[in-house]
Amino acid sequence: MQRREFLGTGAAVAAAGLGLAGRASADEPLHWKMVTTWPKNFPGLGTGAEFLAQAIGEMSGGRLQVQVYGAGELVPAFEVFDAVSQGAAQMGHGAAYYWKGKNPAFQFFSTMPFGMTANEMNGWLYKGGGMELWEEAYAPFDVVPLAAGNTMVQMGGWFKREIRGLEDLQGLRMRIPGLGGEVLRRVGGTPVNLSGKELLVSLQTGAIDATEWVGPWNDLAFGLHRAAKYYYYPGWHEPGTTLEGLVHRPAFEALPKDLQAIVQNAARATNQDMMADFTAHNNDALKALVEKYEVELRQFPPEVLSALREHAEAVIAEVAETGEFTRRVYDSYQSFYARVRDWTAISEQAYLDTR
Amino acid sequence: MQRREFLGTGAAVAAAGLGLAGRASADEPLHWKMVTTWPKNFPGLGTGAEFLAQAIGEMSGGRLQVQVYGAGELVPAFEVFDAVSQGAAQMGHGAAYYWKGKNPAFQFFSTMPFGMTANEMNGWLYKGGGMELWEEAYAPFDVVPLAAGNTMVQMGGWFKREIRGLEDLQGLRMRIPGLGGEVLRRVGGTPVNLSGKELLVSLQTGAIDATEWVGPWNDLAFGLHRAAKYYYYPGWHEPGTTLEGLVHRPAFEALPKDLQAIVQNAARATNQDMMADFTAHNNDALKALVEKYEVELRQFPPEVLSALREHAEAVIAEVAETGEFTRRVYDSYQSFYARVRDWTAISEQAYLDTR
Repeated sequence: MQRREFLGTGAAVAAAGLGLAGRASADEPLHWKMVTTWPKNFPGLGTGAEFLAQAIGEMSGGRLQVQVYGAGELVPAFEVFDAVSQGAAQMGHGAAYYWKGKNPAFQFFSTMPFGMTANEMNGWLYKGGGMELWEEAYAPFDVVPLAAGNTMVQMGGWFKREIRGLEDLQGLRMRIPGLGGEVLRRVGGTPVNLSGKELLVSLQTGAIDATEWVGPWNDLAFGLHRAAKYYYYPGWHEPGTTLEGLVHRPAFEALPKDLQAIVQNAARATNQDMMADFTAHNNDALKALVEKYEVELRQFPPEVLSALREHAEAVIAEVAETGEFTRRVYDSYQSFYARVRDWTAISEQAYLDTR
Repeated sequence: MQRREFLGTGAAVAAAGLGLAGRASADEPLHWKMVTTWPKNFPGLGTGAEFLAQAIGEMSGGRLQVQVYGAGELVPAFEVFDAVSQGAAQMGHGAAYYWKGKNPAFQFFSTMPFGMTANEMNGWLYKGGGMELWEEAYAPFDVVPLAAGNTMVQMGGWFKREIRGLEDLQGLRMRIPGLGGEVLRRVGGTPVNLSGKELLVSLQTGAIDATEWVGPWNDLAFGLHRAAKYYYYPGWHEPGTTLEGLVHRPAFEALPKDLQAIVQNAARATNQDMMADFTAHNNDALKALVEKYEVELRQFPPEVLSALREHAEAVIAEVAETGEFTRRVYDSYQSFYARVRDWTAISEQAYLDTR
């Protein structure tokens, strides 16, 4: 930005002499593109990507400027990983389970049905070896992963009919992608995969009977309450979905160390900010849904949750059998989960149950 | 700090001509001191302060270098706030309830008995107006506050005798500072305030009958299991204690914008990292305590928790009456808490209860 002006002064020579020549500086800004799987500025998710870009820009004093593109602006949502892998964009923001076609192991870095919560995921990723495995998983694609957000526990979804027992899931056509969908299939449902934009119309036309999306804040924005009356909790299929920042490895490695540290810590700050966002905004949206739009809030019956949990364990164990690396990720995830849940039970859970 | 040296070089004149005089650059590193209320590198808390200092140093490419001092190295633990206020140190790391003598309102920025969890606190601070109130609270002292860590739900403490009902709390001398202590007093106990270092000996000599500290990871480090057998949960008195970064306002305001952004986002990253640390490490320590040291893990009886909760509400309401500003902070805290707990109940709590 200021490069030309700066060179116009005699001081440029002195600056070069100080070893500044090879560094990205305020005088020579880098411009990066960030492609995302969300609509531009979509609550929590799209705004999280903007937070990440802005933090990098501010902390670098404009030396690294990141422009965010919503899904479809540069590349379609589901081509974000490839775009970053090939260097068409230097950064991306999405979720690892979208790329399970490349490697089933990726799913563990987003969320697992009946798996870890947001806090537990961060414990595993940052302190339990999870990040190292994630880096290993993306390395063959020239992508550096960053944990950059979490939705916290999601909602179970929107249903046109009440769910009173397992019989009500028989033949139910529900938009629920990934492992959650496979679990639904095993209890008799018919999982369907649709993009966010298709949900409302599909529900309205009866092409599907039910759909999950994220939680009140996002679901209200999509208007899903206009097509289904029953809103179920808890979100057993996505109990703490980690969102990811993606960086094209050659671009990352070309950065000076300080900008690398800025990118990495900006992702941590985004992770934290997004959790605060979802924590703060879901209740107001829920209140609007219940009080203004007369949505019926329901908890899944215990027998439904038991059956789903049982099948979830089997489905996840089967994923682990798909390859040696996936097995290692599964073992790491499960071993951390087994330990951390004992602590969560007497800390977070025991406190919430008695407060 | 290095200003004198810098002025001694011939480059200073050129730099001044470029308007760089007021900016820290790689050529003119700033050296800051961070005084803390923790022993140097104490698990989670002291290591969190180190994480904060390191993130600032790395992201600034060494332009801002922060040296961490443990409690007592430069100033005693409980003089950290004053040291930062007066500029004897540019930064500090502690917890807001330590400074309640300056203003009772400060306590809301750390934790409240039966109050918000870590995630809820971050929701209030970052998205519910909490940070703005905290900044207002510290402004008269020339201190800029940063949320820079959280212990998550703590343990209820170590007891030499079993607590089977309210009668076992009568006359109980327990180290439990702040509002938790006041709540204990109202159910018949005798709260005592001791620094961390005095806990073990006081418990061993019988000067106290019980003590709380943090959680398994920290408590094991202090060896508290050597003096008391019963370890109670949940930590009703500290359900999500926010740790703080403190910055001397004139020092902060003298920073260029990019370094200000680095300091602020480093605190967010520290907040996130410390939560991951406590989540990941408490269970292993708990296992060691129970299996190796034969500690008896116990949940407080429901009648005890009910009585404590009832008195906590009254104690907090009384704090609110101590002044107009405190009232505003209380109203903001309580209003956010009332809304967020409805959401937590059907998301985090409902999920934990069914997984």
